[in-house]
Amino acid sequence: MGTPDPDTIKASIQAQRDAMLALFDQLGQDGLDEPGVSRDPYGAGEQRAHATVTKAAQAMGLEISHDAAANLYMTLPGRDRAAAPLVIGSHLDSVPHGGNFDGAAGVLAGLATVAALRTMHLTPDCDVVVMGIRAEESVWFQVSYIGSRGSLGSLPDGALDVRRVDTGRTLAEHIADCGGDPQALLARARHFDPAQIHAYVELHIEQAPSLVEARRSVAICTGIPGNFRYPDAWIEGRHDHVGLPRRFRHDAAMAGAEFAMALDAVWAEYDANGIAMACTLGRFHTDPTAHGMTIVPGAFHFSLDVRAYDQTILAGLEEKVGRIIAGIEQRRAVRFHLGTPARAAVGLVDPAIAGGLEAAASLQGIDVLQIGSPASHDAAAFGAAGVPMGMIFVRNENGSHNPREAMTIEDFLDGARVLLQWVVTGFNGS
Amino acid sequence: MGTPDPDTIKASIQAQRDAMLALFDQLGQDGLDEPGVSRDPYGAGEQRAHATVTKAAQAMGLEISHDAAANLYMTLPGRDRAAAPLVIGSHLDSVPHGGNFDGAAGVLAGLATVAALRTMHLTPDCDVVVMGIRAEESVWFQVSYIGSRGSLGSLPDGALDVRRVDTGRTLAEHIADCGGDPQALLARARHFDPAQIHAYVELHIEQAPSLVEARRSVAICTGIPGNFRYPDAWIEGRHDHVGLPRRFRHDAAMAGAEFAMALDAVWAEYDANGIAMACTLGRFHTDPTAHGMTIVPGAFHFSLDVRAYDQTILAGLEEKVGRIIAGIEQRRAVRFHLGTPARAAVGLVDPAIAGGLEAAASLQGIDVLQIGSPASHDAAAFGAAGVPMGMIFVRNENGSHNPREAMTIEDFLDGARVLLQWVVTGFNGS
Repeated sequence: MGTPDPDTIKASIQAQRDAMLALFDQLGQDGLDEPGVSRDPYGAGEQRAHATVTKAAQAMGLEISHDAAANLYMTLPGRDRAAAPLVIGSHLDSVPHGGNFDGAAGVLAGLATVAALRTMHLTPDCDVVVMGIRAEESVWFQVSYIGSRGSLGSLPDGALDVRRVDTGRTLAEHIADCGGDPQALLARARHFDPAQIHAYVELHIEQAPSLVEARRSVAICTGIPGNFRYPDAWIEGRHDHVGLPRRFRHDAAMAGAEFAMALDAVWAEYDANGIAMACTLGRFHTDPTAHGMTIVPGAFHFSLDVRAYDQTILAGLEEKVGRIIAGIEQRRAVRFHLGTPARAAVGLVDPAIAGGLEAAASLQGIDVLQIGSPASHDAAAFGAAGVPMGMIFVRNENGSHNPREAMTIEDFLDGARVLLQWVVTGFNGS
Repeated sequence: MGTPDPDTIKASIQAQRDAMLALFDQLGQDGLDEPGVSRDPYGAGEQRAHATVTKAAQAMGLEISHDAAANLYMTLPGRDRAAAPLVIGSHLDSVPHGGNFDGAAGVLAGLATVAALRTMHLTPDCDVVVMGIRAEESVWFQVSYIGSRGSLGSLPDGALDVRRVDTGRTLAEHIADCGGDPQALLARARHFDPAQIHAYVELHIEQAPSLVEARRSVAICTGIPGNFRYPDAWIEGRHDHVGLPRRFRHDAAMAGAEFAMALDAVWAEYDANGIAMACTLGRFHTDPTAHGMTIVPGAFHFSLDVRAYDQTILAGLEEKVGRIIAGIEQRRAVRFHLGTPARAAVGLVDPAIAGGLEAAASLQGIDVLQIGSPASHDAAAFGAAGVPMGMIFVRNENGSHNPREAMTIEDFLDGARVLLQWVVTGFNGS
């Protein structure tokens, strides 16, 4: 196809402004669950979002299809239908009482892109598939990337038997409710052969305020963190009387506090050296059935999530955790029980895609940041399957996973412009 | 009365060995509530203990009486019935699933003392009152020293309306159940005019292993700690996404950990300088309704108990807590909400009593330690009321408030010997 100039591309995205505003507004009404929105995966909230997005895609004349995991595919046919497609996707579920933009913004950016291609009368070389992905938020089933891994045939063993924390029903039952085919998933059916995808690109709101701080609207992702996690660890000490002198104590809570401070010191040191990582003790608590004001805590429970963008850094951190624990066990006469760890590999961004997105931003006159994703994303599942992957982040006030998340339509359109420019010049060639 | 020699005193206590063993055994059976014993205050468990002790006192020919708080008085009449009495007491309740010796040992030591006086045909100058005190363990009603303060007319306002944590019934109802008179307590009736008590002495198992460590059987108390407490404090931060960079966080749990480590460092420093204190964060926890592995904790709750043996040290520590908190609030962008503090004054041991008990131990050939009490005791309530007060601690393995507490009969008899020797020579004169 012929290559429109950057101003035409900008105008064709700006032309989507009212339609996108209306679509975000409708999604917000669909998911309304004060405070915020709840788009429960494989449930009523997510279903309403799928219906709204499907209706918009049908109005644009896109082809609609679904897979065994009930993911939604909205396809703008390319010149060569047999060529490996470009997939632009994100998820349509949300956390309970979350914001309206986490996930949905990426699906709407895909729709804005194909709508703009349409208005410019451009037919891409290959199919451009906008994907509405199911069940990305792990808070519901405590399984990551259900929809995206379902599409790739890489759902982990046992995932279909996991129960949604609120309904108590299995993932298989929920998938069947929404027209999916859990039996096919069990047989490792896949919608995509990863080797047959040209690229996967995802736009997402930033879940940290780096862009707010830097006063820019768009960032290009340099990587998605891998992690190691101890979901259910605890420290064994000894419950004792409140007056017990210090030298006799086996205080599990003090041991937990020392562990937290040691990890925090490691993090501060890495920060100072410019090595990105994060460390979160999300659950961090004495035993509610045994604790009390006049009892030295004999047990302390915690979860640990440590994330970084480099497998070697992660391995080094896990070693450090072990050394920290050994020292505390020695000094405080307690014992750590870490339980079963979970690990996720670092999501590597394809350098050519990242470079292409930066070049596209430059053509659009948008001064982008380069940042590591603070959070996990479906893009990591595609990357892990070998699909060339990249991400665009859009400025967002007040973080995500809460009703106060706030992305302006202007920033969203900046992100969509970068995406469209890349589709037109960076990806599709001249 | 004539003064028997130390060997006669030793023999007269040794003669109580079997009776005391049988009495401890009966109390253990009365309170049996596997694991350990439960002598619930103003309830069935404590009532059985009172019945057993009363029966033993009646067999010794002691006068039995009670007060409005249903405390038990077992009196050996003195030569001058109008003279200020010596009170030897401790409590007959226990924590749930506690040990057999915490409290009861002091009452039985009083009985062994008066029984020995009887066998030596000694009549003391004043009445010797063995007191079985009610409801010392604050875990049940969350009020300290109910029985002892009830006897002194110093029960705090509102205490009678407090409900026992397990039954939900008020202290007034429980007292009435056991033959007490809550209306009289409300009118500040008292059994004792503190100015009319010669002295209050209490024997108690040690609740820390200092005597075990020092391989001695008996210690003389140098003081009972005062404290300041924040029963229900919390830290306000901000719940955020697990991937949020460090500089953006308001992590309430990390703030809690830093607070704990700062207090622990203060304690270690005081320890190194030989200043006795203790610091306990008994409840120390993220919010169970909001925490999770992938959420930066936005709220953190704790209780704090800081105790020391000197009012100036305590005041200095409370100031330090304030400075520590101000620093953490600054560094971590969180806010501490301490709630309503509670304070208890230091329990000052009468130097003449402490010296007399040491001299008595020396006469008995028992090499004693001098230690500050790790725990609170009814003796502090008598001391606060202006009664000259002293305490004897007996070696005890495995701490207290648990089923594993362990005092040997030999160590108990050592403690009782010191008590008797003091009654005969130190207190009663020649």
